[in-house]
This record gives sequence, C-alpha cells and structure tokens, in this order.
Amino acid sequence: MVITEHIPLSTKGHGDIVDITNDVAEAVEKANLENGIATVFVPGSTGALTTIEYEPGMLRDLPELFEKLIPSNRRYHHDDTWGDANGFSHLRSALFGTSFTVPFSGKRLLLGTYQQIVFLDFDNRPRQRELVVQIIGE
Amino acid sequence: MVITEHIPLSTKGHGDIVDITNDVAEAVEKANLENGIATVFVPGSTGALTTIEYEPGMLRDLPELFEKLIPSNRRYHHDDTWGDANGFSHLRSALFGTSFTVPFSGKRLLLGTYQQIVFLDFDNRPRQRELVVQIIGE
Amino acid sequence: MVITEHIPLSTKGHGDIVDITNDVAEAVEKANLENGIATVFVPGSTGALTTIEYEPGMLRDLPELFEKLIPSNRRYHHDDTWGDANGFSHLRSALFGTSFTVPFSGKRLLLGTYQQIVFLDFDNRPRQRELVVQIIGE
Repeated sequence: MVITEHIPLSTKGHGDIVDITNDVAEAVEKANLENGIATVFVPGSTGALTTIEYEPGMLRDLPELFEKLIPSNRRYHHDDTWGDANGFSHLRSALFGTSFTVPFSGKRLLLGTYQQIVFLDFDNRPRQRELVVQIIGE
Repeated sequence: MVITEHIPLSTKGHGDIVDITNDVAEAVEKANLENGIATVFVPGSTGALTTIEYEPGMLRDLPELFEKLIPSNRRYHHDDTWGDANGFSHLRSALFGTSFTVPFSGKRLLLGTYQQIVFLDFDNRPRQRELVVQIIGE
Repeated sequence: MVITEHIPLSTKGHGDIVDITNDVAEAVEKANLENGIATVFVPGSTGALTTIEYEPGMLRDLPELFEKLIPSNRRYHHDDTWGDANGFSHLRSALFGTSFTVPFSGKRLLLGTYQQIVFLDFDNRPRQRELVVQIIGE
C-alpha cells in the first residue's frame, strides 16, 4: 500500500529550522498502515531535511555550522545566473539533502526519544512550502 | 511490487556532475507502477547522489565547495593503502552519500520544477558506472 | 511485505566506525524476501550512517574529516543546555544523517565490491545502540 500525504509549511527562510515530527507522525497515523517507511521529500533546491535534538542550543549551533561550511556573505556563481543571491541556499540544500526516510511500526515512528525530524529552509526569504510524505507499508 | 532497473553512465570523473533525472524518470515510467518510491543507489565508494538546480552557476559552485570541504591536492591515509591517490574521492562520497530516494505519483517523480537528481563522480579518472534504481510501489 | 529487524551494537563512541554490512545482510537474508529495500535507521541524535571502503587508511581519514568540519575541542551552545559536552556529536549526526536505504535483489545487498555500510558513533562515551532495519519487498 502507498499513501501520499503533504505537509504545508510557512517558513521564515534564512536557515529556519522547523520541527515537522508531529506532521510526519500524523501523516503516518492518517495513512492507517501498521508497519512501513515514510519518505519525506522537499520538492525544491533550497531546503533540506535531517534529524536533531530540537533544543535551544542546537538551534544556535546548527546555523553557525551552516555559516562555517557555506558562508552566506559571499558571492556564488549561481547568483550570477539568476541574480537572486541565494547560491549559498542551494549549496546547503545539496549538502544536507532533500530526502529523508523513517521507519514506523505499530503506526508509530521509530525515532529516538530526543530525536526530531526538521525541515531546514535555507532560502533568503520567507517561503510557502509543501513537503511530500510518501508512506509505504502494510 | 518491486522493479529493479539500472542506469549505465560514462563519466569524466574529477567531480563530474551528471544530470540523471530523465534516466530515473524513464525507469519509473518503464516500471509501470502508479505510486511509490524509487531508491537510486551508487554501488561504489567514490560517487554520490544529491539534488540541485542544474544550471551553469551551480556547476561551478559545487566543485568549489567539494575543494573547500575536502581538498584534492593533499595526501590522505587512504592513498597510502592503495596508492591510487583518490582518498579525497572516498571522503566526498561518504559525506554526500550513495543512496537517494524520491517519491513518485501518477508515474511522475515528485521533484520541484527547478530540481534535478545528479550523480557526482568524485573519482580521479573517467569511469563506467551502473547505478541501481529500485522501484517499489503499486 | 514489511519486516522489522534490529542490530544491537556496543560502541566505543568518540567517532567509532563500525562495519555493519554483515548485520544488514543477515537481517535481509532472515527476512526471506527476494527483492526490495532495507532502510537502516539510527534512533538517536549522536550517530549516523554512510558507506565507505572499510580499510585502515579511511579509518584514519574519516575521523580527521570529522575534526576538520566540526571540531570536538570547542564549546557548543548545546553543551550549555545539558552540560554533556557532546554538541559536536549532535552536529556531526545532523550533517551525515541517521537514515540509509540500500536495495537488495535475490536476497543480496546491491553494494559495490569495496563498499561497506558503517555506523558512526559520534558520542563522547561508549554506548549501547540498537539500530532499526526496516525491510520492504516481495
């Protein structure tokens, strides 16, 4: 069985870190499958997905890591193509990745106790997003 | 239903960025399943997969990022093991990852409009590759 | 068909790199499905999964890369939250990722000849881990 769900999000951009754990959990409950996997997907090239412990310290550490690995205050070749100055957003998306798959069992996500699924919006402006959740199971 | 397809590629190596979106889309169409997921996989340890907006600027930005994070012009311990001088290729593969899963619906990949799936060949020479596409759906 | 298996691990922490290829292969054989995918998952926020050629050189190169990208010898905001001094472990986990999906065919993992699946334990102390392997196929 395959069930397709969507998660609409209003983000602030600029490295916004959005906890989507409950959204994914609700999509899985709604799908009404006992066991399987949920693939969360970002249809776009300036966002990404990962898991973190969603606590105030990490919400400061993670953006500092983004800046260190891929600074936002320099010019990228991508910026010359479109003039939208978000080359850094694209590179961060390519590095962190736009697809994330989580298993579930007994309709519950098999996450750790202190582990949340987060959407990272790297774009340089607020965005309306719609993530895909593709649920496969039985 | 599970369908296994392959994508043969001749790459230039040296950070070659190959747009495989159409190959994955054709594999999914050929599988003739309506809804599901396609897992693209690199059977090797010097390549990787990610998504980008495939435009000339990013094709320059991304190799510059590879060089910044993991320079090719230094010696790695891996090079002492095999003498093939591609330690940097292995590290880049481990960082970017060899597995990528994309959902499809109505036989179409649920990618963003400006989002392409790319194979990154980090090896230091041209390579013949054969990627695996494992398609699961109904 | 969905089969849930587990891989118990005793790790040394501190960037311990554990080859779990055989564990995943055995889980797939035990599941007794011909073709499909296995999603390996870390229920926690200080570990990660990737693939490498598991040889002595890479086992030195990879920890050096961890230190370069995300040094362990500095203070992170996360450390101020819990006082457990493992902010670097959390950041490395978020960067490398906690989910990995590998296809199998004829009950065999479709890995490259010199490609192993590894669990990276970034925590700053030995840990008992239990990875999830969610196997979907037919």
